[in-house]
Amino acid sequence: MDKHLSSIGEVLAYLKSNNIINIEKRAKYIQDFINKENRYTGYEYDRYLEYGASNLSNVITENSGNKKECILWCVNHYLSLNRNKTIIEKACDVLRKFGTGCGTSASSCGMSSLHKEVEKKIAKLVGKEKAILFPTGFTANMAAISYLAGNNDLIIFDRECHSSIINGLKLSNAKWVSFKHNNVLDLESKIVKYKNSYDNIFVIVESAYSMSGDLAPLKEIVSLKKQYNFYLYVDEAHTFGIYGDKGQGYCYNEGVSEDVDFIMSTLSKSTASIGGFVATKEKYCSLLKWSDPYVFQACMTPADASVVLSSIEEIERNTWMIKELHKKNKYMRELLKIKGFNLGNSQSPIIPIFIEDHKKLRMVVKDLYYEGIYSTPICYPAVKLREGRIRLILNISHTEENIKITVDVLEKICKRHKVI
Amino acid sequence: MDKHLSSIGEVLAYLKSNNIINIEKRAKYIQDFINKENRYTGYEYDRYLEYGASNLSNVITENSGNKKECILWCVNHYLSLNRNKTIIEKACDVLRKFGTGCGTSASSCGMSSLHKEVEKKIAKLVGKEKAILFPTGFTANMAAISYLAGNNDLIIFDRECHSSIINGLKLSNAKWVSFKHNNVLDLESKIVKYKNSYDNIFVIVESAYSMSGDLAPLKEIVSLKKQYNFYLYVDEAHTFGIYGDKGQGYCYNEGVSEDVDFIMSTLSKSTASIGGFVATKEKYCSLLKWSDPYVFQACMTPADASVVLSSIEEIERNTWMIKELHKKNKYMRELLKIKGFNLGNSQSPIIPIFIEDHKKLRMVVKDLYYEGIYSTPICYPAVKLREGRIRLILNISHTEENIKITVDVLEKICKRHKVI
Repeated sequence: MDKHLSSIGEVLAYLKSNNIINIEKRAKYIQDFINKENRYTGYEYDRYLEYGASNLSNVITENSGNKKECILWCVNHYLSLNRNKTIIEKACDVLRKFGTGCGTSASSCGMSSLHKEVEKKIAKLVGKEKAILFPTGFTANMAAISYLAGNNDLIIFDRECHSSIINGLKLSNAKWVSFKHNNVLDLESKIVKYKNSYDNIFVIVESAYSMSGDLAPLKEIVSLKKQYNFYLYVDEAHTFGIYGDKGQGYCYNEGVSEDVDFIMSTLSKSTASIGGFVATKEKYCSLLKWSDPYVFQACMTPADASVVLSSIEEIERNTWMIKELHKKNKYMRELLKIKGFNLGNSQSPIIPIFIEDHKKLRMVVKDLYYEGIYSTPICYPAVKLREGRIRLILNISHTEENIKITVDVLEKICKRHKVI
Repeated sequence: MDKHLSSIGEVLAYLKSNNIINIEKRAKYIQDFINKENRYTGYEYDRYLEYGASNLSNVITENSGNKKECILWCVNHYLSLNRNKTIIEKACDVLRKFGTGCGTSASSCGMSSLHKEVEKKIAKLVGKEKAILFPTGFTANMAAISYLAGNNDLIIFDRECHSSIINGLKLSNAKWVSFKHNNVLDLESKIVKYKNSYDNIFVIVESAYSMSGDLAPLKEIVSLKKQYNFYLYVDEAHTFGIYGDKGQGYCYNEGVSEDVDFIMSTLSKSTASIGGFVATKEKYCSLLKWSDPYVFQACMTPADASVVLSSIEEIERNTWMIKELHKKNKYMRELLKIKGFNLGNSQSPIIPIFIEDHKKLRMVVKDLYYEGIYSTPICYPAVKLREGRIRLILNISHTEENIKITVDVLEKICKRHKVI
């Protein structure tokens, strides 16, 4: 193996740029790199948590079995509802009443009255006629994006859209083109350029972007929609449950829910479960019920559905939680800016620390880990090769002390490696 | 709407054959059909279970709210472990200890020690170096099939392979071609025809086919493999946990586990949870950890992982369960054959009752429902338009009385509609 390949991201980029496509060669490059890493400090993508997510957790390196207590910054739960006792006990009651699994897809009668209650609750919360549940957010996006647009349509999507959207595009019969990240002018130019060549245009954006924490200019995009008339699809994965006074989401927060045709979100983040939904008009939900991931995929389990339902109830009941999260987000951002960190254009509770140099990024992550602060490095293929970063994802279980310690240690290490 | 479209399957086929691709038109055709159905007996794909799956359950029609207690035949739990008290209480303990969700993907440290235990348990059970977990079976297949083969490779798959496999093929850079269902001669002829034109050939089959209950001729396919040298991938969705004395699966049952390169299964059927795995050599697992659905999809919840682990333990401990299931399968098949039903080539605990005429199929399903026997009709797009069927999926919770009543009522109704 090329000895200059110092990270798995570089290995993957090397395989791609050298057109190495054979399964044996690809597997060997990756396994050799992992084995080399395991002879030293341990492969950073084979780490896991001893007892699940919280603000503090033992992080275990699989190969060596090494265990280290860390402040965790890689979890997207935001409201830390995964540890909420009321939600947990309700899920236990549901396990006893509804059983553990559904055993089939929704089309084969796999859903229960509880699933239907979740669909109704979500539709009402985000302000749409109906919502349709999928067992994961990834497959919700994949289903909707592959199935809504026809082959005379064009999908225009933000360049930083999530992998689940990209996989949906690849499976769609429609044509597709990207626009520059959060750039409304570029979006408009694409619409103007293509609008007469297609039956319909679908515009796909995320309300907050997972890798950067940037919020989308939804009001401006809705203004464009009023001028040019297209279908608008918004992925609220990182805003559903944590924007709007009751967690209605960022579309609601910006007053544009009615103008957005499709509101989608995962249920694995603020609602601390797994699954995804698309909320829209009844007729579009009826259509989506014939997409492959709906017809041919088992439903989310009753316990997972219960966690979603009671998480939403907790959010509605305890409106202080959302305020508290954003207060902590503001506090941490201010501390980091004072120390001289470049936080890009990020605003949501995802705080990116950009470190262009791959080797430095890895060393910073490694040193943080030794000091008991954990977040996985974000590098290729999640972002472009020279756009590596650490993500600090705020959860309300992070204490003021957790935040202070993290910022101080991060400053010390980043100065050592000349990042700031 | 064309008044001759008497089922949703016909509506979907009509849209396809007439190249009706516009979202508004498709949504209108489907919604109009549903509204029409709801004015009469209720739309059969909008039914759900009041309290989750078991042998008996109240089936509710969403629009009318009508409720009817039925013997259920549409659930793939097989061993009915979804109602096992030990498994349920262990899941409750796990909810309290590990929390409700993981909050991120495995690559971002979303897994817990429990997830790793599940991976080890599965790998050992099916006889492979390692196993890799996905949050659904659909995305396990999609990830593996899209990511293993390169663009100089050919994938040859059985024509009746599941939608998750087909979606994986569509996302793959490899070329692909099908062979006739369970036809080893046709498979061989495809291998001979193409083997010199590609770097590698991947053959994909299911051990048991979901729509027909047919078992695959694995021994013969493995013989071909020894002759022609290809990668063999077997989807054990409908055999994992219910073939082999301890549920090792059908590859084990046929003595070919070592010859199969990739053993895959969902975890929503015999193990009564949700999720999926691919078990194979360590190096291939390391490769698959860079597939999109692994990197960008949240992990299965700790409670769901716990259900998988304790289901496997229950299966290993109570080897009578598998025997009991196959005994009931044999019993029900014999009863049905005596009554003159055509069960095709099916052998697994999925019993198909083939009813070619669409209208008759729907009337039989409707009449069965009125008599308290429930299974959704299987029609287009799940199978070809004239290959409709009812599936009776055996679970060990089905009593001898449930089976007798079902067969008697089925006979009465099928005679009335001149199906037998």
